[in-house]
Formats: sequence, structure tokens, C-alpha cells
Amino acid sequence: MPDKFHDECAVFGIYGHKEAANLTYLGLYALQHRGQESSGIVSTDGHNFNVEKGMGLVADIFTKKEIRRLKGTKAIGHNRYSTAGESNHRNIQPLTVNYAFGHLALAHNGNLTNASVLRSELEAYGSIFQSDSDSEVIVHLIAHSKGESFLNRLIEALSLVRGAYSLALLTEHEMVAARDPYGFRPLCLGRYKDAWIVASETCAFDLIGAEFVREVEPGEVIVVNDQGLTSHHPFIVPETPAKCVFEYVYFARPDSKIFGNYAVYPVRKALGRQLAKEAMVPADIVIPVPDSGVPAALGFSEGAGIPFEIGLTRNHYIGRTFIEPEQSIRHFGVKLKLNAVPDVLEGKRVVVVDDSIVRGTTSRKIVKMLRNAGAKEIHMRISSPPTIAPCFYGIDTPTQKELIGSSHNIEEIRKYITADSLAYLSLEGMLNAAPGRNDHYCHACFTDQYPIPFTKAEEIQLGLFDVNTSPR
Amino acid sequence: MPDKFHDECAVFGIYGHKEAANLTYLGLYALQHRGQESSGIVSTDGHNFNVEKGMGLVADIFTKKEIRRLKGTKAIGHNRYSTAGESNHRNIQPLTVNYAFGHLALAHNGNLTNASVLRSELEAYGSIFQSDSDSEVIVHLIAHSKGESFLNRLIEALSLVRGAYSLALLTEHEMVAARDPYGFRPLCLGRYKDAWIVASETCAFDLIGAEFVREVEPGEVIVVNDQGLTSHHPFIVPETPAKCVFEYVYFARPDSKIFGNYAVYPVRKALGRQLAKEAMVPADIVIPVPDSGVPAALGFSEGAGIPFEIGLTRNHYIGRTFIEPEQSIRHFGVKLKLNAVPDVLEGKRVVVVDDSIVRGTTSRKIVKMLRNAGAKEIHMRISSPPTIAPCFYGIDTPTQKELIGSSHNIEEIRKYITADSLAYLSLEGMLNAAPGRNDHYCHACFTDQYPIPFTKAEEIQLGLFDVNTSPR
Amino acid sequence: MPDKFHDECAVFGIYGHKEAANLTYLGLYALQHRGQESSGIVSTDGHNFNVEKGMGLVADIFTKKEIRRLKGTKAIGHNRYSTAGESNHRNIQPLTVNYAFGHLALAHNGNLTNASVLRSELEAYGSIFQSDSDSEVIVHLIAHSKGESFLNRLIEALSLVRGAYSLALLTEHEMVAARDPYGFRPLCLGRYKDAWIVASETCAFDLIGAEFVREVEPGEVIVVNDQGLTSHHPFIVPETPAKCVFEYVYFARPDSKIFGNYAVYPVRKALGRQLAKEAMVPADIVIPVPDSGVPAALGFSEGAGIPFEIGLTRNHYIGRTFIEPEQSIRHFGVKLKLNAVPDVLEGKRVVVVDDSIVRGTTSRKIVKMLRNAGAKEIHMRISSPPTIAPCFYGIDTPTQKELIGSSHNIEEIRKYITADSLAYLSLEGMLNAAPGRNDHYCHACFTDQYPIPFTKAEEIQLGLFDVNTSPR
Amino acid sequence: MPDKFHDECAVFGIYGHKEAANLTYLGLYALQHRGQESSGIVSTDGHNFNVEKGMGLVADIFTKKEIRRLKGTKAIGHNRYSTAGESNHRNIQPLTVNYAFGHLALAHNGNLTNASVLRSELEAYGSIFQSDSDSEVIVHLIAHSKGESFLNRLIEALSLVRGAYSLALLTEHEMVAARDPYGFRPLCLGRYKDAWIVASETCAFDLIGAEFVREVEPGEVIVVNDQGLTSHHPFIVPETPAKCVFEYVYFARPDSKIFGNYAVYPVRKALGRQLAKEAMVPADIVIPVPDSGVPAALGFSEGAGIPFEIGLTRNHYIGRTFIEPEQSIRHFGVKLKLNAVPDVLEGKRVVVVDDSIVRGTTSRKIVKMLRNAGAKEIHMRISSPPTIAPCFYGIDTPTQKELIGSSHNIEEIRKYITADSLAYLSLEGMLNAAPGRNDHYCHACFTDQYPIPFTKAEEIQLGLFDVNTSPR
Repeated sequence: MPDKFHDECAVFGIYGHKEAANLTYLGLYALQHRGQESSGIVSTDGHNFNVEKGMGLVADIFTKKEIRRLKGTKAIGHNRYSTAGESNHRNIQPLTVNYAFGHLALAHNGNLTNASVLRSELEAYGSIFQSDSDSEVIVHLIAHSKGESFLNRLIEALSLVRGAYSLALLTEHEMVAARDPYGFRPLCLGRYKDAWIVASETCAFDLIGAEFVREVEPGEVIVVNDQGLTSHHPFIVPETPAKCVFEYVYFARPDSKIFGNYAVYPVRKALGRQLAKEAMVPADIVIPVPDSGVPAALGFSEGAGIPFEIGLTRNHYIGRTFIEPEQSIRHFGVKLKLNAVPDVLEGKRVVVVDDSIVRGTTSRKIVKMLRNAGAKEIHMRISSPPTIAPCFYGIDTPTQKELIGSSHNIEEIRKYITADSLAYLSLEGMLNAAPGRNDHYCHACFTDQYPIPFTKAEEIQLGLFDVNTSPR
Repeated sequence: MPDKFHDECAVFGIYGHKEAANLTYLGLYALQHRGQESSGIVSTDGHNFNVEKGMGLVADIFTKKEIRRLKGTKAIGHNRYSTAGESNHRNIQPLTVNYAFGHLALAHNGNLTNASVLRSELEAYGSIFQSDSDSEVIVHLIAHSKGESFLNRLIEALSLVRGAYSLALLTEHEMVAARDPYGFRPLCLGRYKDAWIVASETCAFDLIGAEFVREVEPGEVIVVNDQGLTSHHPFIVPETPAKCVFEYVYFARPDSKIFGNYAVYPVRKALGRQLAKEAMVPADIVIPVPDSGVPAALGFSEGAGIPFEIGLTRNHYIGRTFIEPEQSIRHFGVKLKLNAVPDVLEGKRVVVVDDSIVRGTTSRKIVKMLRNAGAKEIHMRISSPPTIAPCFYGIDTPTQKELIGSSHNIEEIRKYITADSLAYLSLEGMLNAAPGRNDHYCHACFTDQYPIPFTKAEEIQLGLFDVNTSPR
Repeated sequence: MPDKFHDECAVFGIYGHKEAANLTYLGLYALQHRGQESSGIVSTDGHNFNVEKGMGLVADIFTKKEIRRLKGTKAIGHNRYSTAGESNHRNIQPLTVNYAFGHLALAHNGNLTNASVLRSELEAYGSIFQSDSDSEVIVHLIAHSKGESFLNRLIEALSLVRGAYSLALLTEHEMVAARDPYGFRPLCLGRYKDAWIVASETCAFDLIGAEFVREVEPGEVIVVNDQGLTSHHPFIVPETPAKCVFEYVYFARPDSKIFGNYAVYPVRKALGRQLAKEAMVPADIVIPVPDSGVPAALGFSEGAGIPFEIGLTRNHYIGRTFIEPEQSIRHFGVKLKLNAVPDVLEGKRVVVVDDSIVRGTTSRKIVKMLRNAGAKEIHMRISSPPTIAPCFYGIDTPTQKELIGSSHNIEEIRKYITADSLAYLSLEGMLNAAPGRNDHYCHACFTDQYPIPFTKAEEIQLGLFDVNTSPR
Repeated sequence: MPDKFHDECAVFGIYGHKEAANLTYLGLYALQHRGQESSGIVSTDGHNFNVEKGMGLVADIFTKKEIRRLKGTKAIGHNRYSTAGESNHRNIQPLTVNYAFGHLALAHNGNLTNASVLRSELEAYGSIFQSDSDSEVIVHLIAHSKGESFLNRLIEALSLVRGAYSLALLTEHEMVAARDPYGFRPLCLGRYKDAWIVASETCAFDLIGAEFVREVEPGEVIVVNDQGLTSHHPFIVPETPAKCVFEYVYFARPDSKIFGNYAVYPVRKALGRQLAKEAMVPADIVIPVPDSGVPAALGFSEGAGIPFEIGLTRNHYIGRTFIEPEQSIRHFGVKLKLNAVPDVLEGKRVVVVDDSIVRGTTSRKIVKMLRNAGAKEIHMRISSPPTIAPCFYGIDTPTQKELIGSSHNIEEIRKYITADSLAYLSLEGMLNAAPGRNDHYCHACFTDQYPIPFTKAEEIQLGLFDVNTSPR
């Protein structure tokens, strides 16, 4: 379902190709779904660093002029979702600094849970931060490290941070990729002719015709320089990783592979088939909420033996601004993005499949829209369990209060969205449909069970600890 | 299939609402698929005319500032497809002029076949044209008319033009809608509270919650002023109209009704079902070329009893510019818009359904993309007959030479696009699936049979007559 | 004195140089003082017309990209002063049209007094105007003419217009220059290598190193084509021309020659010397209102034997917008442009020389500023007679009501501006200081005696005839 | 003489007025001559810091929108000259940081000679710099200080830097002004109603109607907070200050007072009178190179008894870009800015007065321009001694090699610029004309005698020490 969760970012890096910046641009273009608010590319020829950044879509920010300026055979790039406007230009990644050891650029997907504590300590030592971003903490820790090589300094820095990170870093002579020991966010290693590439998802490799080699493992640090690629495992990794199951449910692109050699599309279909098994209902048609609900709806249709139809179409020309009329038009907001097709819906018992419900307001509008278009019965089916807790590892969820699943039971939600029936996929059903072992996934947003226990300081940073009252 | 044909335009008009400009903006937004290159809105309070125009998408051109400037309770708007850049700002519609009888604005969907002849005559009388647009001829004919009322002057002007027009016009005191006697392009009449509305398709009514009243009939002129609505039929209409069947095949939005009370989506499904009947092939899955091929593919899947799958996904973040890499990446252009999903395709016999083939280059890239993703057999099915002739009534088709269907037979096309089999829907099959009588449609692009015989002057204008050699 | 009068325009044309557009750009740059609100250049290679226009200063509108687009060896250009914003983009000159006889571009300096009448007549014939500009009348008259050659059509058109015009016109094969029979505004003919040039003032020739040949005579039409230059005198010229004396007093650049071989700077000094003769006063220093008052102040200093000083300096970094503080700061507006130099003024009897007084508000602020800076006595001296009537021949003066000289006698003005004494130059003194015969000048703004009697229709257009009351 | 030296900056600060940002804007506008490439304003309401910065002129960067965003009763601002483009946006001052002690903004006029050494040390401690600016060193030193109050931390920081600084700083609760112990650059204290103001020159006070109180003394630190103003003298000051004499010769605005209660204009006239005494020559007229040469030329005219004339006028409409014609036009560059007035010059023996000669190329063009306009003899007189050494205290001079005065004697320079005679003012003559004691001025650019001995590290930073060869 569009516009509820926003993944913070995508990262991309390439070492060893004369069109490094152009290929980074294409990679970011393929990864656009992971962040549409700003993008940046940093390249180097081994001496100077070239930087181009901007607000907006990749294909709007970069023109031939910018790409031409990004000289060099090594580059990293970043897409970002951000709530802020131009004034936050300084927060656009990759972060770039010029410090005692030369140039450094960093692109970060994920979220550090102890960034505030580390920042306070660094500032007490006299450090001055350029941005509000948690990612900058890593750069300052590197600058303070006494390690001999960049790799040593990076390892020292990363050993101090907690939380989720999939990183691409660039110095004059190395591209480095690193993934936190829990492996929250995906990170993939690829090969394009003689160049090494890293990217958040394999769809970036497909667009440029690169080969997918393997995922960067949880806790792994990969260094690429003129001598080739070396892999390092400097951190203690937990017994079980904590890969984000929501990447399969909603975030990743359906044609990508993530978390190893596992494609997203068949997982989504499997979620739908499982949902049909768990929450069958007699109906005339199954329709998806486009575009993200399509594979699960196909799976449901298959599993339930009910015909698949397109009962909602998506408007592809959204544009950047939208002016609402002064007087209220019914279900206006959702109508800008979705249109009901009355000839499909009229007089029908409809199963409508979506991937998740956040606040419930959009689902409510969709149900009313379908009802107005003539649907006789409306059965909402969700291909994941109720979302009850915020993500602190790199997904931009609303606060717990705003999550309808945290305060309402399923019958209450059904009433609110005015559906004739509502069912969610079970936790077990979801984890079974996801590839590999069930205990290898983070499902905190569905269970409130965060894989790493929070310190008190982290609870304060994350808004989980109310100083005035008793603990949460 | 995206990006081959471009309908020239959409028109919208409203009379009698205090948010006239805002509703026009919303109407144009809903009609964005009929023209994405430029848009304009003209409003009036009965005295002054306010004009806002720009290049780009509706939601990018108009901000609150522009809408606020567009004062008045009457407005018309226009979306346009144009091949040219900023320098053609003067061609953006609605055309507005200040002439002997006051202000006049005109929005035109369609194409006049005798515009060149009329322009030459008018220029010989001393008229000076502002634009290159055929539509401006109508304005000059109105300015030269000695008719007493605006209606009389308009009728006099329209009696001289030949070809296709669905028009919305605005003077200080009237909104006028007119449709050519053949009814090539759609035009719909709606009602929103006390206001009258005209729009190219009913999806514009749905977005703002207006009621669809009826289509504006071929040859009808509708005048709306403070005294209400009056209908006029001043022109001789032909025995059979010539409605564009391609609106059903590709152009109109699936959730719209056009040419009367006939929805587009079920027609497209019917085209697919008919195609399955005519051109069945044993296969494992049916996939659409998104987004336009989806309904026909669902119809084919239903008719053939072969499962429907999503084997190609569409990239929704295209942006405005795109920089190609210097070295060629395989099937690059099409990859920017479509992604194959290998897990769906691998080892499968695939029926891929599209609405039409223009040059063949995109189909060829799609077939190769599917093949690379692992498809074992690829059977291309097209839900219309081969396109063999250009449209002169408002669709931006390439010249006849560029249409692969005009010079190659089906087997040759199949070889070119490297499919294992290729089949088109028959003319009869298409016309049977379309609503109403078969002889009420223009199918010139499939048959080279134009509903109105061309004069020699028209043939020259349209590039059909080669002065140096024998007639075509 | 800055910012009171605004000359409407500058024109420039060149025929026969491969850098035609670039030289036009430089010519317009040199003529920037005659119009700072918008500029345009049109060039031709004999087939196509290339057009670049914009709001702002010449050096801000045109970049290398624009100049490169302006291909061809023939070009004309125009600077314009305009009160309106972007919405009047269509009024930016040169006007360009594509009419029955091909392409035509026109650049006009001056003002037609019977434009409204002619426009009404043309519109009654069915003509549609693109702009609000009086200049467009000429183009429509040309389009309506049945003359065989462009020259004939132009002569026919110009024989119908009344008022002031110095024109540069461009067709595919000719550059044409024309000046009205009274010669209100200047127009100069120059030569640069093999190319012929016309420009409003000779400073445009000096910048590019062109040679000044002679002025285009009142009533003369010059045609330049591949066969060379031909001169025509098709109109009856009046016994005495009516050259604008205010060009010498204020408008033209001091280093230009206009109205023949007469430089502006020495005329301005002569005006100052004559002023000293007529209106001597005992004082310690003579200071100019910069920059326009400098030559007259030097002349006064010389004539009076009183030392010249810089008591006011001009701020050269004005920029495009200026935000006033909410609370009023004393003499704020004038302080943004002028600064008093207390060390020059303290305790001194000061003669301050300016070229004219329009509304009196600026003079009043200047006097107060000088007084605040310590001046003991302030004697304002004006190097022209009181301005009492508006110009209808191309100078943008306020209405008669706003001219303080039209309603107040000199003593009243002195009181208003709070000077210790005030004197203007006499009409005779001014005309004697100007080159050539006294009766060869238009001095209507000083005398209310317009050289051409107005028809009733003209009086209505010019706001001189009040329909409700008795004649003016 | 235009475009040779560029003073790096202007600073402005205000504490205690509800229109603080607007008054800062006006102050920067008045100080525009000290830096035209970029500007910024930072304001605070005691909690948040608001920042607006941009490239270009003050009146182009700030609109009502920006000023409205700059809330609060305290603000500082900065104008800057910079050689770089947009990519150096991060160098635009005021610098702003958010560090351990809260918010801090800094505006700096001057140049630190030991910035490189300090930066290296700070980076070795792990500090990361945001910009290339020497000024940022001060901010990092403050961040590293353990001082208890902001004043203590600032004093500790400033005790470590060497060179020239006139500073305005802003924290949530204080505005602080500081001037280096040598007092190289000016800094003035003013009062506007209840608010305290600091500005580089008094012309900023005059525009807003503020009262000039006194100069900020060399080595003084002034703190303004809600308790009022306190003055501190924490540094050892040298026996004699080293005020920049070139501020009087060229930089400061003629209507300003600097270095105490001494106005600039009469000093410039005195330089001209002294020059007439030292380097008289029989001539017909004295002309200035506008605008900076005007007061000295008036002084020369007075001293020599030779009439003053305007023989060169300045073009005030320069604009931002300028396209040169491909073929060379004689003396093109200088013609864009200056125009000779032939009627003044023809047949005359001309003394042309300028304030300095840097590379000699402009003077050479001016002499040729005057010669072409008919001058019979051209005697160049310079109102300062030959410029032979670069400034390291805040003036952007070319390197020593590029200074024609460092490698050529006066006769050689005369030959190069093709003047009939050339004379400079003597060092003694200049210092006598400047107010107060001769030994209170820095005249290093004329004498190569820098007031503070350089360390070896400084010599390396300043490019004075060639590592490969023997010392300079």
C-alpha cells in the first residue's frame, strides 16, 4: 500500500570503472523506491573528491553536467527519504569530510540507536557536527581513532555504535562496505567487468547488467582497492541474525533478491497463498491495493481459487505538489492516487489484499471507495500481522500511538475501516513464508520484541522512556 | 504498452462554481494520461481573463499561487502532448485572444485536416497567427465572422473546418462545448452541484465527485451561460459516426466511460478474451506488458484458462531527464521502465499480452528481456489488429514508414521481435468487442480507410501526396 | 537624477556580419540606460528566425547558449522599460510574426498617438492582436497592405500612424530602419567592416568599434539587403523637426552623439554654465546629484567660479529587490541610492545641481539629507525648465497631476523641497545651449506645446479629453 | 580603480531590536562594496538559530521571505568576496555550528596567518572541518576550550591565532565583537535606539539612522547581552597599531568614518592635493578613473589649479555574465566598464588620476582608450606608492609576481602603460595625508615590511618560503 512506511535509504558503491559515476547514477535510479527525497553521488580519481547532491528524484537531480563533473573510477551514492526541506541540504548523503587522514565519504542505510550518547561524548571532546544525522557519528569516531589504517579506524568506530547499518564508504584509495552484526538491512555484492559493486538490492545490478555475487554478510567488512577485494569479520556476531522481514512484505522491489539468493516476488505470493489458507472467505473476486499488494493478491487468488481482477488503478502522474480544493471532496486524498473501476466491482463480493495497515485511514478510504463503486461485500486481507510497534532500525514508521494496531484489536479495526471482514496473516504464517529459518528475522514492528536490548540512554533517545512517569 | 502513441490532448470546462479553477486543475490532473507535456487553465469573472500555463505535469505547473490568481466562476483547461521545448510556449493551450468582440479562450482535442488551406487564406486577408497550432484557425475564423452572437460566429467558423475536434471555449459570459459531426474524440457532459462541466473522459468527473450526465453528441454545440444550458445541432451529421476505437484499445483510462455509457475496462478484458479465442496457444502463464496490457491479459488468462502472473514490473520513478551511459548496456532503454521478474519467468512458456505494436523495437527488447530472465517460450499476443496507417484525427502516430505493420507481414514481425509466436486480434474481433455497432468506429490506423475522403490540399498538408511522383 | 523619467526603449540592428547576434548583444549592452526591464534579439540566416527574450538586464538575459542559438548574419534587438511583470512577456520586443509574406521582426522606440483608433479598425476587420503594445499596430498594417514589396507595405503602414517612431525591422532578406518625419527620437547609422548598423545612440558603435556614419534623417526609410543600402524619403516632412530636447538634458548617455554630430556631454556642461549665468548665488561649493547631474554641475562650477565637490555618492550595488524595514527610517528610499558625505558638506553653503524635478519628493529627500549632513545653505539649481506636461512621444512620464511643476509655482516648489533657494534654467537658455536651431526641438514637457495637433480620438487615447466635462 | 583589489569581507551585528534581521540586511547593503560574491545573515530568538545565505548581491539574495524567516532580536551578517562558485556554498559566512555549548555563529573580516598550523593540530585531535576557511579555526578552538564562559573560551581561542580579525559572533544570549591587537581592519560600535550595533564602517550606521559611538579598539572584546555592554582588553597590544592605510586609499566607502572619527573622503582629497605638490605637470584637464579616483582627482585639480573634468564615464549596468565576441574588439574588457568622452578629451593634455596600479593591464587599456579618444598628452598620477607586496591581512591581492610594481621601476611601468608621464605618491606623502601618527599604519603592500614577523610555518602557509631553494 503506497505512502505509509518509508525506508530511509539506499546505498551503492563501485570501484574500478571509468564510468563509475554514471553507473552509480543508474544504480541509484534502480533503488529509487528506497528513498525519493534526496540523492547524492561522490566520486574520486584517487586525489580529489567530486560531490553532487540535490533534493528530488535521481533522474531530476543529475544531468549530464553533474555526471561529467563526477570524474574518477570510484564512486558511492545514496538515496534518502527525509521529512525536511531545503534547509536540510546538509543532511543529504553521502556525507563528505576532509579530515586529518584526507577525504572520506559515507553512505548509510539503517539507524543507530546510540547516536545521541556518542554525539554528546564527541562534542564534549570539542568535536563540531555538520548535520543532524546519526550517520555523522561514525565519521567523527573514525576521525578520533588512532588506528593505523583506515580499516582499523573504521572497525574501532563501528565497534562503538549500536543498531543497524549497511554502509558504503569511499576514501582516495578504497571503497569499503560494512554491515552490522545483526544484518538488519540488506547489502549485496556484485561484479561488473573488472569493477566491484555493492548495492542495497540486486535490482541495481540488473539494470546495469552486473552479476550478483553474494550478500555482504552480517558483521562483514569488505575492502576494495587496487590490490583487489578482501573480506574481514572483526565483530562478534550474534547466534541468530535479525534481518528485516518487512523488506519481503513491502519494502524491497519485487524483482530484487535480498538476504541471500532469495527473490522477493515469490515470497510475496507465498504470503498471499498462506493468507488464503488462514483466512478464506467466499467471494467473487480478489483485487490488490496497487502496486505493492499485487503479488500477495495473486497468491491469495491462487490459494482461494477466486478470480483475480484489477478493481483499483493507480494514478502514475502524481507530480510534486498538490492543491486540495477548499471544500471537501469525498475520499479526496486517496482518489489522487487510486481510482476504483465500477464495472469490475458492481454487485460483487470483493476480497481486497494489502500488505499492511498503519494508521487505518487509507484503508478506511479504500473500503468506502469500493463500496461507492458498487461492491456488495468487502473483505480486507493483510499479508502480514498487525503493526504494533515502531522500527528503530531504519524504517520511518509513525510513533506507537499512531499505529492503529497498537491500540485496537482486529474487530475494532474492522469497524473503523468499515469492512465486512478483516483478517491479518499470522506471525508464524509470515515467517514460514519467508525464506530460511524463522528466528533469523527481526519482527519487532509486529511483536514489540526488539532483537537488541536497549540501554536506558537509548530508550531516552528513542522516546521509549518517559522521564516523568514510570518506565514503559 | 507505454510510450508509443500519444493522444494529443484533454479538454475540461466548468461554468458556475466559485472554485472553478481548482476543479479544472483537478479535472486536468485526472486527464493527465491524455497529455503530459504542457497544461493551461483560463478563468474569467465575467470581465477579465486569467491565464496560467506551463510545461510539465499538471501537479508541477500549478501551485496555490497560480490557482489563487485564476479568479472567477468559469474556467477551461487543456493538457497537451508536444514534441517541442520551451520555445513553443506559445503553442500551449488554451489559446487566448483579445479581439474585436472581447476575450476568447479555446481548448481543442483532435486535429483539423484542412488547417493549412484555411491559414493561407486567412493570412492572405492580413491575419497574423500567434502559433503553429491548427487550432488557431478556428479562432481567426471566429474573428472574421460577421455573425451576431458568439454562437453564430462559432458555427460559421466550424462549418469551414474539416477533421476532428472536441472543443471547450470560454468567453466573458459563456462556456461552449462542441464536437465534430463524426465524433472522433470523446467529450462528456457532467454536473457538479449547480455547475455544468465538460471533460474528455468521465474519470475527471469521478475525481471531483461530479455526476456524469451524457456524452456531447457528434455535431452538437452546447452553450452554458447564466440562463442555463442550451443544445444546438447546426451541422449535417453523417449516417454513421467515426468514433476512435483506439480510445478503447489503449488511450482512455480504464476506469473512464467514453462514447456514451460504456466503460473502458470491460471492453479491454473482452478484447483479451476474444484474442484467446482467436489465437490460443499452450502455455504456463499469461503476463501483461504493464500497465496498459493488464486488462487484456486478464481477459486472455480467463479465456484461455492459463494463470495470470506479473512477469514485468513497471518503474514508477522515471523523472524528467535520463542520462544514458556511454557504453551500451543491453536493452537499456526499456529497462528504465520495465523490470523482468526472473522467479516468475524461469523455465516457463509465457504468453505476453500487449495492446499494440508500433515500431517493433520495444516489443523486441521486451522479448529479449523475458528470454534473458529465463522464459522458455514467448508468445506475443496483441489485443488489436496490426497498426498500418497514421492517424490524422488527433493521435500522434509516427509516419507510415515507421509503422512496422505497414511494411512487414506478421511472420516478418515475429522474426524481428524474436518471439516464438505472434498473433494480433482480428478487425472483426476488435469491433465486436467494442460497444455498439461495428460501423460506428474509425479504424483507419488498422485499415488505412479514412472516414472522410481527403481533398488534394489535405493530402498535401498531411504528407500523403508526393508532388514529384504519382499519387499515393 | 535617477529614477524619474524612463525612456521607453533602445533599438539596434545589423546586416552582414557572422557574429550579428553577439554584436547586437553588445549594442544593447551599451544602450542599457534606455531600458532596463526586458530585452530581446531576433536573428536570421535568411530562412529561419531565431528569437531570445527575457526580463532583466542584457547581461543577465543572454548567455553563450542564447547567443549561440541566434544564428545568422542579420539581427535586430531591443531594450525596453516596462512597468509590468512576467505576465507581459508577450510585450517584450522585438515583436515577431509569421504572416502571409513570411517572417517579420520589429523593434520600436517611440510612441504612436493614434494606436487605439487603428487597433479598433483592424480588429473590426478580424485581426487578432498578440500584445497590448502600440507597436503591434504597425505589423498588422503591414500584413493588411497589398503593396508589392516589403518596402511598399511598410511605407503604406507608416503613412497611417501618427506619433514618434525610430524603428529597426528584419525580414528574411532585409534590415530596414525608419524614423518618423518629426524625428522625435534619435537613430544613428553606422558601419562595422562590411556590415551596416543602426542604433539609438552612437555609444553602441563605440563599444564594438564601429564607425558612426550619420543620423537616419527624420522621415527617412533605409533598406539594407545583399545589394547594399538604399535610402528613401517617402513621407512629407514638416518644416521644422521636433527632436526631443530632453535627450540632451537627461536621457542619452553623455559619451553619445545624437541628432547628428553633436555630443551630449558638452551640451550638458553648457546647460550648467548657462544656469550659472541665469541663476548665480553666493556659495562655497557646487555638488551634483549623481550621476546625471555631474556635467551640468561642472558647467555651473566653471560658470560661477565656485569649487566643484562630490557631496553625494551613489550606491552602485542596488540589486533587484529591496525590502524596506517596517518602521520608517528617515529619507530611507533615497538613502539606498545616495549617500551624503558630511565632511564635504558641514557648515557649507551648497549649490546642488540636478537635471529636472518630477514629483519633488526625491528633491525634498535630498535637501533634507544634505541639511542633516551639516550643509548651512542649500541652493537647488535645475538644468532645464519646470516639467509641466507629460510626454506622448516615448518617454514614460507621470500624469500631469503628478508633475509638481504643473500645479506649483517655483516658490511653492522651493518651500516643498525645503531648499533655501531654487532656480530652473529658462526655456530659451536651454534651447540656446542645445545644438542647432531652437525651433528644431520638441519641448512639450516644458511648455505643453505638442508639435502635432491631436485629433479628438487621440486626445481620448492619451487621456487628455474628459468625456464628462468640458475640453481640457 | 575598479576590479583590482578585493577586500575580503564586511561584518555587521546587532543586539536588541525586533527588526534585527532587517537592519542587518540594510547594514550589509551599505557595506556591499567590501564583498559582492556572497552574503549571509544569522539571527536568534535566544533559542533557535535562523540562517539564510546565498551567492550574489545582498539585495538579490534576501527577499521578504528570507527576512521573515530570520526571527529574533539578535543577528549578525557578513558579505564576502570569493573566487569560487556554488560548490563553495559551505564557505559562505557567518559560519554556524551546533556544538557542545549550543549554537554559535561567526563573521570574520581579516585573515589569519597561522590558520594552517592550527588546523593541522586540531585535525590531529580528531576535529573535522566543514569549510576551507581560515575563520573556522577560531570556532574549533572555541569548541576545544575548557573555559567556563563563552567569553573565556573565545579569549583562549583568540590568544592562539595570529593575523588580522574583526569579528562579530552570536550565541543564544550574546553578541560579541572582537578586534585583533594590531587593529588591521576597521570595526565600529554604534547605537540604534536601545540596540547595540557593530559594523565594519560607519556608512552602515548612516543608512539605518544609527549613531556612531566609537571604534572597537585594537585588542578589545565587547560583549553585549541582556545585562548591557561590557568591554574587555584581555590581550597584550603592541606599542603601535597597524591599521590598513589602503582602507583610506581605496577600500572604505568615501562617506564612511573608520579608525576613529576620521572620514575617508577628505583623506582621499588630501592624497590628491599632496600628489599635485609632489608630481605637478602642465596640463589642460584633470580627470579621474571613476569611481574610486574621483576624490583624489578633485584634490589634484585643486592643488594644481587645473580644471577637473569627467573624461571617462562608468557603465552602471554590468550584470552578472558577459559574453565576449569571438573576434577581438580593441580594449574590449575595459570598455564594458568605462567609456571615454571624446568631446572632453580631444586635443587636450590630460592628467588622469587613479588610486593604484596592480598588474598594469587596466591602466594600459585606459591610456590607449584616452589616446584613441583624442587626448594629446596623458599623464598618469597614482594617489599611493607602487604596490610591491601581497597583503596577508585580509585584502585579496595577486601574488607578488603579478604585481607590476614588484618587478618594474616607474619608468618601465610608464612605458608598459604607454603614458607620457607617470608618478606615484611618496610613502611619506601618503602617511602624512592619512590621519594621526604615521607609524600607526600597516603599509606592507607598499614596503614589504610586515608588522608581525612571520614564523617559518606561516611563511610556508603564505607561500613566502620556497622549500626547494634558499629563503626569500
